[in-house]
Amino acid sequence: MRTANKLFEAQKRNSSVLCIGLDPDLDRLPKFNQDPYGILKFNQEIIEATKDIVCGYKLNFAFYEQYGIIGYEILKKTFESIPNNLVSIADAKRGDIPNTSIAYAKSIFDYFKADSATVNPLFGKDSILPWLNNYPKKLIFLLAITSNKGSEDFQNAIYRKVVKKSLQWKYQYQIGYVVGGTQPKYIEEIRKFVPWRYLLIPGVGTQGGNINAIADANKHGPVIINVSRDIIYTSEDDNFADKAREKAIEYNKKLSIFCT
Amino acid sequence: MRTANKLFEAQKRNSSVLCIGLDPDLDRLPKFNQDPYGILKFNQEIIEATKDIVCGYKLNFAFYEQYGIIGYEILKKTFESIPNNLVSIADAKRGDIPNTSIAYAKSIFDYFKADSATVNPLFGKDSILPWLNNYPKKLIFLLAITSNKGSEDFQNAIYRKVVKKSLQWKYQYQIGYVVGGTQPKYIEEIRKFVPWRYLLIPGVGTQGGNINAIADANKHGPVIINVSRDIIYTSEDDNFADKAREKAIEYNKKLSIFCT
Repeated sequence: MRTANKLFEAQKRNSSVLCIGLDPDLDRLPKFNQDPYGILKFNQEIIEATKDIVCGYKLNFAFYEQYGIIGYEILKKTFESIPNNLVSIADAKRGDIPNTSIAYAKSIFDYFKADSATVNPLFGKDSILPWLNNYPKKLIFLLAITSNKGSEDFQNAIYRKVVKKSLQWKYQYQIGYVVGGTQPKYIEEIRKFVPWRYLLIPGVGTQGGNINAIADANKHGPVIINVSRDIIYTSEDDNFADKAREKAIEYNKKLSIFCT
Repeated sequence: MRTANKLFEAQKRNSSVLCIGLDPDLDRLPKFNQDPYGILKFNQEIIEATKDIVCGYKLNFAFYEQYGIIGYEILKKTFESIPNNLVSIADAKRGDIPNTSIAYAKSIFDYFKADSATVNPLFGKDSILPWLNNYPKKLIFLLAITSNKGSEDFQNAIYRKVVKKSLQWKYQYQIGYVVGGTQPKYIEEIRKFVPWRYLLIPGVGTQGGNINAIADANKHGPVIINVSRDIIYTSEDDNFADKAREKAIEYNKKLSIFCT
């Protein structure tokens, strides 16, 4: 099944545009006593507690790679723990010249078997085509505007080009965009070009993005709203998974504005 | 020791600006009979055969990650196999928001213990500072212009900004730039802004960059010239390491133009 279809169905079935970002940080997992393998248990409990109320999970590779090969193993096993009817997003933001892109896409789609991936567009069209042509059922999210202050430095100058050019390439069901939730004005502008493509919107929660402002700017286009820290670290106690579920339900209420 | 100093000394000692890119591709390693662990043996033999005639080795993470966790293990062990007086370059081109950059930098500098790294600048200053502030002895290479055709699509619009802005941040001995050898006009232009910073120049060899044109454009600034496939795949026979050495010596002769 196409990732785009799976996403649509998961959002409908669970009445949720919420994606939980599994960004492990041992310093915030006291219960696991600094054991990296505890991260896997943590992730699995979060998934088990929320799988009926989200549309997917986003795994940011950096937070696994910082623990070396153990982290890599946990990353693989976390992907395997995500139910098949939810969307897994490999948030690795890879980008490189064409022959290298092929290898990165193999890693993410063949080895990790992710449903979708974030891709850094800086290397241009020829670097992005392997992600599209070699994996026609997958969905990639090109970085447009991220949620940090530094997005003003260089992204500002090219995000319009990234959106407009990639629109010309077609691949209608295969390309979405990452647009930070902290800057709704960009969402509004990008929606003018791509009213029907998926936007992956991080930056809600700890980073401060305002849900109503995002919804206003979005104009009923399809979205995935990612929340990481503000859900998974709701509680440091044994009941962390239940507390994460409660927090996810709260988010879903606020996010129901996107489901109308 | 600062990576910048180590690099200067290695280039002087071995009279070489040549860096060998270790980009493993099982399809081109017939002797190892499709066994991923053969890659480690292959890398170690190449290193052993060339360590007195190069300044360093560049490991492109994609070519390891495509083999999953085994590839990751081989990547780690290849880093460990690089002699301490040569420079190891983690060519991972990571880029992400600040808290994620911290994790990527940990992976590359703390876990893999690389001397230097290529960094994707798209996320802006706040995303690059963790690489610089947390690791003052390391050297990072910001992507300016890469060697592929797609570099015209988006990089073209921001590479001047990347160079000029990062120059304002100072970090004199910590920042270099990746500039593809296929496009010497960009090297000439960038050299006007940064006459004394290191340029990491890939794209020579299989990709067709012309050494004399690069040298003309470079105007005696410090460089690392990376060659991957054209050296490591010189021969498919048992004598591949000796043949790679011969090819590296040929390159060094042509590259001596940079050592004057």
